[in-house]
Amino acid sequence: MAKLYHVPLSPFCRKVRLSLAEKKIECELVEERYWEQSAEFLRRNPAGKVPVLRIDGRTLSESAPICEYIEEKYPEPALLPKSAEARYEVRRLVAWFDDKFHHEVTSKLLYERVNKKMMSAGYPDSSNVKAGARAIKYHLDYMTWLLDHRRWLAGDVMTLADFAAAAHLSALDYISDVDWNRSEVVKDWYAKIKSRPAFRNILTDQVSGFPPPPHYADLDF
Amino acid sequence: MAKLYHVPLSPFCRKVRLSLAEKKIECELVEERYWEQSAEFLRRNPAGKVPVLRIDGRTLSESAPICEYIEEKYPEPALLPKSAEARYEVRRLVAWFDDKFHHEVTSKLLYERVNKKMMSAGYPDSSNVKAGARAIKYHLDYMTWLLDHRRWLAGDVMTLADFAAAAHLSALDYISDVDWNRSEVVKDWYAKIKSRPAFRNILTDQVSGFPPPPHYADLDF
Repeated sequence: MAKLYHVPLSPFCRKVRLSLAEKKIECELVEERYWEQSAEFLRRNPAGKVPVLRIDGRTLSESAPICEYIEEKYPEPALLPKSAEARYEVRRLVAWFDDKFHHEVTSKLLYERVNKKMMSAGYPDSSNVKAGARAIKYHLDYMTWLLDHRRWLAGDVMTLADFAAAAHLSALDYISDVDWNRSEVVKDWYAKIKSRPAFRNILTDQVSGFPPPPHYADLDF
Repeated sequence: MAKLYHVPLSPFCRKVRLSLAEKKIECELVEERYWEQSAEFLRRNPAGKVPVLRIDGRTLSESAPICEYIEEKYPEPALLPKSAEARYEVRRLVAWFDDKFHHEVTSKLLYERVNKKMMSAGYPDSSNVKAGARAIKYHLDYMTWLLDHRRWLAGDVMTLADFAAAAHLSALDYISDVDWNRSEVVKDWYAKIKSRPAFRNILTDQVSGFPPPPHYADLDF
């Protein structure tokens, strides 16, 4: 069975968990406090980060290459479309969420509010939290614009781009940092993705010291 | 003809330039002072970054998705191998250089020494420069370890991983920040890649206010 070293609220780990679950690849989850940099973990991944996936007798790190690997080895159901143009658009949006959204929003809200406390690394920086709260509005508006034109973020079918976005938003929703009233189409999109069987495991996550709000796991949020 | 909006020393732009040149795709280069955020440029790329590639009637941004697109539309000569395992290793190393090396080295040396001055954003932060100078040693040692076991960084054939690494190192070499005496195998690897026709254009780059050192374009450096 595959084994994923992860932390529950990491959007990069969540994206990999969603890919595995959508493709019905059974996977044992092992929580890894990577910031404590245990010698055993560093041996598995010299970059010292999660996710790290044990699969097919190999140890893989870096979420984007991991997702491409899963897609190539386990192509059904497809999370990347067929044409180069459509695949480009999926990868562009994955990079948008994992680079830009991560930098402007996730790192400013989730990492300040949760990771700092978990890692005993001090108190949230309020100017970062404010900047993150401002930036998420602009990103929700960008998603609204995309979803006004498309059924899913990258086109007419669900792809890895939706999982990348949902991975970030679900982690932020765990700390009530997403204003679902801002955009009806984004809320509808999240309701669709949240009700997929692949999402169930994510909705049962519990982080010690941070109980999720009641709406987090509610499909009628 | 394709058109690439770029800045000469950007490693992300250099990786795309190397891919295009290796595949003999003709491309006009347009220097883009993206930090001035002209309205016209932001219309081309709302993320406000380079590279931006006009190709096949489309406007593409984000260097990793751009390189995957080029690979899928123009497969010869291949810069990604065939098997999922080998492709994973290439993508892992591209991410290593574009995320980890970029964060620990390129942003600490090149951006402090060159970009800050170009963008009139102040003076180099000497603690960053010191941290970058320390970190590059560790990365050169990692490359040495890889190249002791393999002809090219990701295996026995040249791939996008070599271009990603060479894109960062060549930009740092432009400001004499690579100690080629640290590792003979890394120097041999760079000599091989530097002498490819695809590299020629990179070696003629000139940045106003920063003349390159004589060894920069010398194949016997």
